Amino acid sequence: MKKTYLLTPGPTPVPPDVLLEMAEPMIHHRTKEYQAYFQEATRLLQLVFQTQREVLTLTSSGTGAMEAAVANLLAAGQQAIVVRGGKFGERWGELCEAYGVRVVPIDVSWGRAVDPAAVQQALAKHPDTRAVFATLCETSTGVVSDVRAIAGVVAKTSAVLVVDAISGLGADELQTDAWGVDVVVAGSQKGLMLPPGLSFITLSDKAWQLVAAHKPIAYYFNLLAYRKAMQTSDTPFTPAISLVRGLGKALRWIEREGLPAVLARHRRLAEGVRAGTLGMRLQLFAAQPSNALTAIAMPAGVDGERLVRWLRDRFGVWLAEGQAELKGKIVRVAHLGYMTEADMLVALSSLELGLQALGHSVTLGTGVRAAEEVFGRP
Amino acid sequence: MKKTYLLTPGPTPVPPDVLLEMAEPMIHHRTKEYQAYFQEATRLLQLVFQTQREVLTLTSSGTGAMEAAVANLLAAGQQAIVVRGGKFGERWGELCEAYGVRVVPIDVSWGRAVDPAAVQQALAKHPDTRAVFATLCETSTGVVSDVRAIAGVVAKTSAVLVVDAISGLGADELQTDAWGVDVVVAGSQKGLMLPPGLSFITLSDKAWQLVAAHKPIAYYFNLLAYRKAMQTSDTPFTPAISLVRGLGKALRWIEREGLPAVLARHRRLAEGVRAGTLGMRLQLFAAQPSNALTAIAMPAGVDGERLVRWLRDRFGVWLAEGQAELKGKIVRVAHLGYMTEADMLVALSSLELGLQALGHSVTLGTGVRAAEEVFGRP
Repeated sequence: MKKTYLLTPGPTPVPPDVLLEMAEPMIHHRTKEYQAYFQEATRLLQLVFQTQREVLTLTSSGTGAMEAAVANLLAAGQQAIVVRGGKFGERWGELCEAYGVRVVPIDVSWGRAVDPAAVQQALAKHPDTRAVFATLCETSTGVVSDVRAIAGVVAKTSAVLVVDAISGLGADELQTDAWGVDVVVAGSQKGLMLPPGLSFITLSDKAWQLVAAHKPIAYYFNLLAYRKAMQTSDTPFTPAISLVRGLGKALRWIEREGLPAVLARHRRLAEGVRAGTLGMRLQLFAAQPSNALTAIAMPAGVDGERLVRWLRDRFGVWLAEGQAELKGKIVRVAHLGYMTEADMLVALSSLELGLQALGHSVTLGTGVRAAEEVFGRP
Repeated sequence: MKKTYLLTPGPTPVPPDVLLEMAEPMIHHRTKEYQAYFQEATRLLQLVFQTQREVLTLTSSGTGAMEAAVANLLAAGQQAIVVRGGKFGERWGELCEAYGVRVVPIDVSWGRAVDPAAVQQALAKHPDTRAVFATLCETSTGVVSDVRAIAGVVAKTSAVLVVDAISGLGADELQTDAWGVDVVVAGSQKGLMLPPGLSFITLSDKAWQLVAAHKPIAYYFNLLAYRKAMQTSDTPFTPAISLVRGLGKALRWIEREGLPAVLARHRRLAEGVRAGTLGMRLQLFAAQPSNALTAIAMPAGVDGERLVRWLRDRFGVWLAEGQAELKGKIVRVAHLGYMTEADMLVALSSLELGLQALGHSVTLGTGVRAAEEVFGRP
């Protein structure tokens, strides 16, 4: 018998009632019935984003909402500061370059978090900066940024802060309104427990003013069109109806558990996996680790790609490999969305067996035991 | 008991096995298992598009693939001819204008088809035209264009022909390769019998050469990135995994029935609905009607919006209203995708009752009888 444990940082497992909701017969989107689903999903998105503002839903992967942010905020020749400390920080840079935006990069070694003081210095040096792009959880390294501190720095300038919270939302704390984060972007297939296909974006008044001041090239990603349509619970283009129905169902899991409890669960799972990693005498890769995933540095002689393959073939346990410059050097265990302590124990115990099978000296049970000690706390 | 008959030209009903396929547990997209689904869906798309070329799958509504065509083919200041004879022809114009493309419009009264000679004249007058944008089935009017003739005209020039086949594909004949149609765009929620959320695009060598000659602003819709990723059965951004799984399942319905039989079924359903329309002494709105939907002109004194509401509330039958300048003036019956003769009889008989209820003089049974005569032919 082969059973699959999907423990990757996106896509993540989808709860069974959400899957079944998406299997309901098709309905038309310009109907009261669909509007009720859309309004409910939007209300629940506000809860998860911790915002009173409208949250717009786009039919695209998360990158689509990232592009919407760049295209609607910035014209060619304008200037942005981009924090690049992994694959997704670099994506902000690539997007800005595609639109002819002048990029002031803040390059952070992969595995480290950006120092908010570096953002402050860059803003002081480049006062004509229109936007600062950062990442809540950098999925490629497992690092979480101090978005609260960065927001405090950016708020003192005329620039807006744009945060990619695609993999962090619902796992790492992000108080959009309270911290004054101008723009937050998210995707459906991470902490929101849905298949990929939807992305989300919310903007502050300060950000909407920048949008209003420029005529974006974007058509499908024209945010003013989405905002206008939302006044009548509509979207400018046909929405992914089945995914939006699933979204409401998925977010009700978060509402029932309560967002503080959801965030506490992610913290607890993350603490367990970190303790387990150290317990089996491995190292954490991220200096400031996210609660969405744990990047584990591979010891000398162990190829992360081989280990991931072994876990998949032998146990049906799906972890993520390292990307780009981290290929083979780390493996990533997600604790993101529809995941529990039991899933983490599966990950750690199969990791112990995998390391042993690949010839690495590990005392069986040491990782699991360390995690159990965390999970056994009252 | 309330039972719904979704007879709108998108979204359209989704077959039950497709719905259940999308309710399968989530899998990761960078796996052999997902690649097999993606490859199978792509092979079947080639069958439906009648092309040997690669068909690219994007996560967006159909408008996203339309934007991809414009953004990848044309730079600001370049020139395009746009056939505008309805809401979706106008969308091509809006997209071109968003990208600063100089638009030479060919305006066709709503309900008429463009004369291919008009395209020929416009090309002769504007020899620096880079692309001609047309629509296979104009969903807002129910008109089908003579794409074969237009393709013959455009092929003699340096321009490429770009066809929006979003609602026409799988209903109206479109021989992409044999007719030499350079670019074809489609969407998932019409003849392909899937929920909305995916769009598709295929390009000829002539079109790819234009793409290669210019650096598009697009990032999420950068077609060269999709083409490159496809070499390893991948996409540049996380795909809508559950929809792609459903896509293969839906397109196997078309493969089993056989594309010629599918097109013949749509023709038959369309002929039945047209005969039924005339049988109840109403007029067809489209001078050159599509096999995807029938637009029925409302007689004096009957408000199409009221009729659509009545059919929905009384019978659970969902037809589409008129859009924009046709609001209230037509109703649209789809015969598109997962629909049968029985569905058309439901549409026509409920229409007869609806017209009577709204005070219009109609002899009950006359529409149904005319359609039955078509369906009763061997």
